[in-house]
Amino acid sequence: MNTQPLKGFRDFLPKEMKIRNYVIDVFKNVFESFGFEPLKTPSLEYAEVLLDKYGEEADRLVYQFRDRGDRQIAMPYDLTVPAARVLAEYQNTINLPFKRYQIQKVWRADKPQKGRYREILMCDIDTYGSESVLADAEIIAVIYKIMQNLNFNNFTIRINSRKALYNMLEERVKLPKEKWDTILQTLDKLDKKGKAEVKEELAEKGITTGKAKDIVTYWAGLKPIEADPKLGELKTYLDTFGIEQKYITFTPTLVRGLDYYTGTIFETIVKDADIGSVTGGGRYDNLINQLGGPDIPAVGTTLGLDRICDAAVELGLFKEQVQNNSTLLVTVFNSKLAEKSIKTAKTLREKGMQTLLYPDTDEDLGKQLKYANKKEIPYVIIIGPEEAEEDKVTVKKMKSGEQKLVTLEELTESINF
Amino acid sequence: MNTQPLKGFRDFLPKEMKIRNYVIDVFKNVFESFGFEPLKTPSLEYAEVLLDKYGEEADRLVYQFRDRGDRQIAMPYDLTVPAARVLAEYQNTINLPFKRYQIQKVWRADKPQKGRYREILMCDIDTYGSESVLADAEIIAVIYKIMQNLNFNNFTIRINSRKALYNMLEERVKLPKEKWDTILQTLDKLDKKGKAEVKEELAEKGITTGKAKDIVTYWAGLKPIEADPKLGELKTYLDTFGIEQKYITFTPTLVRGLDYYTGTIFETIVKDADIGSVTGGGRYDNLINQLGGPDIPAVGTTLGLDRICDAAVELGLFKEQVQNNSTLLVTVFNSKLAEKSIKTAKTLREKGMQTLLYPDTDEDLGKQLKYANKKEIPYVIIIGPEEAEEDKVTVKKMKSGEQKLVTLEELTESINF
Repeated sequence: MNTQPLKGFRDFLPKEMKIRNYVIDVFKNVFESFGFEPLKTPSLEYAEVLLDKYGEEADRLVYQFRDRGDRQIAMPYDLTVPAARVLAEYQNTINLPFKRYQIQKVWRADKPQKGRYREILMCDIDTYGSESVLADAEIIAVIYKIMQNLNFNNFTIRINSRKALYNMLEERVKLPKEKWDTILQTLDKLDKKGKAEVKEELAEKGITTGKAKDIVTYWAGLKPIEADPKLGELKTYLDTFGIEQKYITFTPTLVRGLDYYTGTIFETIVKDADIGSVTGGGRYDNLINQLGGPDIPAVGTTLGLDRICDAAVELGLFKEQVQNNSTLLVTVFNSKLAEKSIKTAKTLREKGMQTLLYPDTDEDLGKQLKYANKKEIPYVIIIGPEEAEEDKVTVKKMKSGEQKLVTLEELTESINF
Repeated sequence: MNTQPLKGFRDFLPKEMKIRNYVIDVFKNVFESFGFEPLKTPSLEYAEVLLDKYGEEADRLVYQFRDRGDRQIAMPYDLTVPAARVLAEYQNTINLPFKRYQIQKVWRADKPQKGRYREILMCDIDTYGSESVLADAEIIAVIYKIMQNLNFNNFTIRINSRKALYNMLEERVKLPKEKWDTILQTLDKLDKKGKAEVKEELAEKGITTGKAKDIVTYWAGLKPIEADPKLGELKTYLDTFGIEQKYITFTPTLVRGLDYYTGTIFETIVKDADIGSVTGGGRYDNLINQLGGPDIPAVGTTLGLDRICDAAVELGLFKEQVQNNSTLLVTVFNSKLAEKSIKTAKTLREKGMQTLLYPDTDEDLGKQLKYANKKEIPYVIIIGPEEAEEDKVTVKKMKSGEQKLVTLEELTESINF
């Protein structure tokens, strides 16, 4: 039997899980402090709910099948489509504006590559039912607070506006409306593919060399805040939220590939880690309706959990306790002394310490210490016959080998991660 | 388009999600304090990993399909089979004994009924690689601590031993070994189906009336602690863990339906809620190997999240803040005064309060108050022109209508959930 996970899927062992759980907790705390509320939807939906929403290419990536009840069912490709379904289904229960967060898996039958998986834990926040720039500002304030709480200090949130880009293409380049999105999709590839290839693609899309030059010139020279007055308002709000200016860059060349954005767009770049954007989002006032939901405006962002974890590990941003084992091991000398060990573990747990009680009562102490070493457990507590007689315990710091004989009351003081 | 979730599947709106998240946090904190480590496995596996493990009936409940790469794939039916795969795959990385918790969805194409769903969030803890009774005791201590932390006070953890049951069937009833499991399965139905039906089923399985009488007599008279010396040891450990005796019942008639248990078995009953057992587990020393994992002993339990949430709500065990909205609403009087509202929200968030800033800057104050009412928000903060001039804010308690004019510094003191 093959015991590996499916290609493009991952097992998360405790070490990785601890980091992911820590980051998700930071996300959740910030989301909730801003009044975003949790939502969860099923991992299987009627296929008709999920298909025909983002075009044929996306549909090909949807996992779908026929169930035993002869229903065509499918696994969500993103969280926006299920959210649109929820907004339609519970129109009378959900009060707008509705700020929700959703952290759950989505699946894409994409070609697996380094850093690209078929099963992704999506972390989305969105505000439904408000057209206000203040709603945009709050999404950015959430991102900022999360980056801060994760100790990132060399990052920037890039901001632009689809409207500014459209205005430029209309008024300066004089491009017909139907070409705007396809041209922006090409421009979005500049960073990845380089100038030559982008020019070639523009040519293929019927853009003359002259027009292509115009586009590049006007594009680089675009001043987002002047081109879209809403960005000026946004900037004021961001200032009021206390976001330092160095963390915000109004970036004329920011496009965000997806067609559905209608206003502000934004992404976050960690400058000292080479991993692309760690968040991506914007305003999409028509999409929820297009996806089968009610006709309501929306703004939101995705936070890339994998990339954020990778960047934080790479930059050494986590406290030791997040990345390393902070569990204590209480050894069991023999079955007679097990009682002492149980009581010691109980006391430590009551004091809030994660405490692993060695579960076997007849294991050699040396083997238990080896086990602690392999698991990188920082402190081991030993209660042998001598300790028991003195009503004390030995605490051993595994890195240095240093040992101390202490009372149960003194124990927590002698542990210092 | 059908906007309902699939039959047997559920959307969780914020109110329910908050309760579930609260309970899951209690689970996790207790798991981690006992040194259980998090593990996650994919929601799709090779079908061969999941099938042929629990027999044909279980296989029929597995969601499976062929993917575009022509692989037969399936969705986990439980978490034990994926865990067995992980134990096999990472034998060199995972140190035994391994205490892991796993909280993730499983799927069963079962007939949907009241309280029975096709998508279930499973919450499992297990200790792999220890035969010790202390490992059994720790699982029960975790359950006890969770029930306590959730404020249940009228519950009992029923304990029995498969060995005690087998001994009885062998030595008293003189039943051949191959009949033990099938007879126990029938006995397990006594509570649900009643005596007559159980007798009938025993007859069908070739048990004479005389033998059936013997079984019932010996069964009711079984003294678990005497019948399995390990239960005596277990009792001592549970005492040492500080578990009050009234929360433990050694129950001779407890069977736990599944064939694979080999030793201690246990379940938790909430006495004042009529919802069956809220946890179920035991020792299963051969199963991991049978499922394709290494040959290691195991003991563990499932915690029924749905039932525990339902029982706690029914019994009113949650603090008001868990079940009710504890978010504050900071209203926005107009776009000019938005800045004041942003700063107020910022201050409240920094003080740890969940604060919803109304995202629209041009909404009528009356409508914002109505919104707060509908969302059952307990406190609303208003900063109109008068408040702004005095550099104060009005805090309104929605239930009583009571209002107070306070400074930003005094604000948190005047909020009292």
